[in-house]
Amino acid sequence: MPTTEPTAPIEVPRGLKGVIVTETTLGDVRGSEGFYHYREFSAVDLAETRTFEDVWHLMFHGTLPDAGQLDAFRERTAALRKLPAEVAAALPSIARATALSGPLAGLRTALSLAGAAAGFRPLYDIDPERRRADALAACAMVPTLLTALHRLGQGLEPVEPRDDLPYAANYLYMLTGQEPDPDKASAVESYLISTVDHGFNASTFTARVIASTGADLAACLVGAVGALSGPLHGGAPSRALDTLDAIGTPDRIDAWLREHILAGERIMGFGHPVYRTEDPRSRMLKGIARSFGGDLVDFATAVEERAEALLAELKPGRELHVNVEFYAGVVMELCGLPREMFTPTFAAARVVGWSANILEQAEDSKIIRPQARYVGPEPKAARHIPTSR
Amino acid sequence: MPTTEPTAPIEVPRGLKGVIVTETTLGDVRGSEGFYHYREFSAVDLAETRTFEDVWHLMFHGTLPDAGQLDAFRERTAALRKLPAEVAAALPSIARATALSGPLAGLRTALSLAGAAAGFRPLYDIDPERRRADALAACAMVPTLLTALHRLGQGLEPVEPRDDLPYAANYLYMLTGQEPDPDKASAVESYLISTVDHGFNASTFTARVIASTGADLAACLVGAVGALSGPLHGGAPSRALDTLDAIGTPDRIDAWLREHILAGERIMGFGHPVYRTEDPRSRMLKGIARSFGGDLVDFATAVEERAEALLAELKPGRELHVNVEFYAGVVMELCGLPREMFTPTFAAARVVGWSANILEQAEDSKIIRPQARYVGPEPKAARHIPTSR
Repeated sequence: MPTTEPTAPIEVPRGLKGVIVTETTLGDVRGSEGFYHYREFSAVDLAETRTFEDVWHLMFHGTLPDAGQLDAFRERTAALRKLPAEVAAALPSIARATALSGPLAGLRTALSLAGAAAGFRPLYDIDPERRRADALAACAMVPTLLTALHRLGQGLEPVEPRDDLPYAANYLYMLTGQEPDPDKASAVESYLISTVDHGFNASTFTARVIASTGADLAACLVGAVGALSGPLHGGAPSRALDTLDAIGTPDRIDAWLREHILAGERIMGFGHPVYRTEDPRSRMLKGIARSFGGDLVDFATAVEERAEALLAELKPGRELHVNVEFYAGVVMELCGLPREMFTPTFAAARVVGWSANILEQAEDSKIIRPQARYVGPEPKAARHIPTSR
Repeated sequence: MPTTEPTAPIEVPRGLKGVIVTETTLGDVRGSEGFYHYREFSAVDLAETRTFEDVWHLMFHGTLPDAGQLDAFRERTAALRKLPAEVAAALPSIARATALSGPLAGLRTALSLAGAAAGFRPLYDIDPERRRADALAACAMVPTLLTALHRLGQGLEPVEPRDDLPYAANYLYMLTGQEPDPDKASAVESYLISTVDHGFNASTFTARVIASTGADLAACLVGAVGALSGPLHGGAPSRALDTLDAIGTPDRIDAWLREHILAGERIMGFGHPVYRTEDPRSRMLKGIARSFGGDLVDFATAVEERAEALLAELKPGRELHVNVEFYAGVVMELCGLPREMFTPTFAAARVVGWSANILEQAEDSKIIRPQARYVGPEPKAARHIPTSR
């Protein structure tokens, strides 16, 4: 019988927690400080002052564009929004077949198809400029795919993209068929920017593992969409609104929260694996929500306040604050996005971050291939298997 | 400005080489011994003595089935071969849109759709029995999807699966519309079994990272197909045949090999990242090829012999032997598989291994989420960004 392998494997914590798998110049999250950044800019500052296209350019090219570069980038990406005809033709059957499995299964399928139809080539077979061209096409098509699938699911015709609207406004336009209020387009734009990237999460890692094999950009993105669809990943702002719905009215806040906290349940919209302070995205989104005002915002603020107080009282030392999902859900509701489009909207922004990570990974030529430890029974000697053929 | 994070990150080799990320009871590769196993059985022994369904059962249930269990497993999986109507209806447009990007882009798209249409649910929302049911459905549908996409690409009607044929024979039947010779079905069956799993490669790891988020089985498999499509992954047996074609005739073997080895080119079909000895899969497949005999086999054997000798002479100490692709390509050619179906055939078998890995990962509830090290410029102080909105 074979003896054990002589090489010494390297032990690391379960789930690769704390393990550095790559270097990046794309950004970082400083959990204990409530701070995250894209390149060398505070992400929240970018979300409050810049356009989505600025940040997209920053992630792809490493610099914020000047006015001329921004115009050129807008024009180039707007022209890529329209779907290849054979993709548009396939969307009704994709919408039908994925109706029960949700919009991320639809996006996963449609993006896989769109990348193939657009002729995306293996990352290691093409130069950086062609890789970036594929990535621009993917990011530009995603809002068109998502809104078309959503409308088809509602029995409506897809709305063709407009190339005269900025990214966020065009997204809302394709969703509703109406040009959006500037306030709402701006609020959604800030949310989208704040969601482009956020450290090294499971979907970003998935995209980079696939990229490390040299597969094409769609292969990488489709894997990332799959990881994002997992319940442990996060990125489901509708869950926080479901909590608000479950509580129902302001007079029930304390009783509902106390009951669910004491039952040991997780309160959706609270707590984050990295942030121990307030989530900087929440702070910004809360500000946007309050600028709209209204009953929902008052109710959400009251729930936040009471939840923080009760969690501090009943779970002392846990540092559970509202996470990005809480006010992201409120802002998207205020902007008229249907609830089933909250996570897809998150995905639309995150595709830009994934793509930037894929482009960065493609500069490396080392496949990511760890090991597993076999812990089953010792293999039996050869020829002791009874034949069944 | 924020200061650096206080936690101490863990340093590991690039590409996670040698890093143990999980425990498994599914099998292992012992590279220095030229040995690999599924559960406690030599994979080559299984390939030479057992049916594909036996091995599939072994991977999913942990044991080889007895006669009654095998009958029940065959019946259950054969009944799952037929595609949901809405998937079958979408295949012509998928075949058209993925025609230029190759069969793995087609599989990626079709499997994404099929999983959604079959109602696959997030792994963490369902019990192990339901997870296994989804995995059986996925593995049973893959040959139907692959052969239908191939035939549609050729302008032919897909052939409906037959539930009275074993897995391998039905696969060849759906591909050609003819019931295959028993010798050829048996050879392909041995190849498929030998390809079910092979340690912890990048596609298997991808499947497990996605599974660790609790995403549905199709999300995991689609990511794995994407990773398999990368040129660095391996699993492209047609490349070795392309080498044979390029050499052309027996009298050109030495000159061709010498020229390409001296030019520092990789000779496709030779060398493996793990095996330093002969690849045990090659040995088995060579035996199968020789049982068929003929000019191609004589030519391949001569190329192997001369390549090993010349590689030892010109690249001393490198231990470059034929890898699985070399004789896998020869065997599939002898069995009448079209060359563009070599890698998809590999994928059909590997879906069983990926699925077994996903089922195992789903028993763990820990998300796989490593870190990256930010190495860009220090973030600028807030509010120093010029406004563009």
